[in-house]
Amino acid sequence: MRHMTDRQRTILDAAIGVIARDGVRGLRVERVAEEAGVAVSLLYYYFRSRNGLVRATLEHANERAAAAAPAQGDGMSGRDRVEATLLADFGADAETRDTSVVWGEVLASAVFQPDLREQLRAAAANWTDLVASAIEEGVADGSVRADVDARACAERLTALVEGLSARWLAGLIERERARELVTAAVLSELRPSPAAR
Amino acid sequence: MRHMTDRQRTILDAAIGVIARDGVRGLRVERVAEEAGVAVSLLYYYFRSRNGLVRATLEHANERAAAAAPAQGDGMSGRDRVEATLLADFGADAETRDTSVVWGEVLASAVFQPDLREQLRAAAANWTDLVASAIEEGVADGSVRADVDARACAERLTALVEGLSARWLAGLIERERARELVTAAVLSELRPSPAAR
Repeated sequence: MRHMTDRQRTILDAAIGVIARDGVRGLRVERVAEEAGVAVSLLYYYFRSRNGLVRATLEHANERAAAAAPAQGDGMSGRDRVEATLLADFGADAETRDTSVVWGEVLASAVFQPDLREQLRAAAANWTDLVASAIEEGVADGSVRADVDARACAERLTALVEGLSARWLAGLIERERARELVTAAVLSELRPSPAAR
Repeated sequence: MRHMTDRQRTILDAAIGVIARDGVRGLRVERVAEEAGVAVSLLYYYFRSRNGLVRATLEHANERAAAAAPAQGDGMSGRDRVEATLLADFGADAETRDTSVVWGEVLASAVFQPDLREQLRAAAANWTDLVASAIEEGVADGSVRADVDARACAERLTALVEGLSARWLAGLIERERARELVTAAVLSELRPSPAAR
């Protein structure tokens, strides 16, 4: 939502918190309204339905995540930017964790609710594009091997991050281990071979 | 459950079907009993609680998945066995898909239900061990590069499969695309460099 009012932002921040605590399937519109301090009718006015609220919350969570990713032209090599973009999902702060829970929840719910898929597809494509363009930038600046398939590689790295994020959020692995594995994957997938340099 | 009766197996197969259709959080014990054609009291007798049934269903799903993985000593190279083990999660049959949905559902639910984590951890460790031992076998037979960190690599490849599986089940990518990406990841992570051969 590009032109969000402060009140919409307050509602969507509350919705992220509720989903992070209760899951998408435990989300009650009344609860979000209560936590945002607004009338339930206002939520329906803005978002039309419970699913409309879930979709807007996913979009808001993705925008928060995208804002946390390093911007182009900040002096990083392409490969470092790929790594920093992927590691942004494993921040120690509660906001980053909540954003990841929302993504995992909407993804898991979409197995049973096809009406969530279109927006997920768009969000996943945006994220893949962001990583693919950092990879291409790395090819141009020599930090990434020249024969990489940027798109396939970006799809793999983002899917790996989602898989590791799900394990981390479910308490199967430590956050630090997830970060190490991402860093090693970036090296393994992107590093120019010594002979090629 | 090593010593399962036919009736237990029937119940757990029914539970896999119910979770694949309604999700873990939509699972009603009465519904599983109905589909298995047994009394609700029998489910409580065998599994004690709804969560006990969910845990037993996860274990049964994992055993079904493990049975589908290629066995050692079947003439495959280690690297081919890694690939075949990982690709077994993307079978075209409904049974494979249902097993993957159960895994994804229990993993997503464990974010909110810590009592599901211990068993998930054990199941994830089993799967990682299976892939790590195939990688080590590949180092021994020359199909995998010698300097691989088998455990970290197995963690990454299984997490990648989970991430791609979640996208496939949510309708974000095609099954064939997921398979291609897994195959490419196995090559990228494991193939011996030409110079090293």
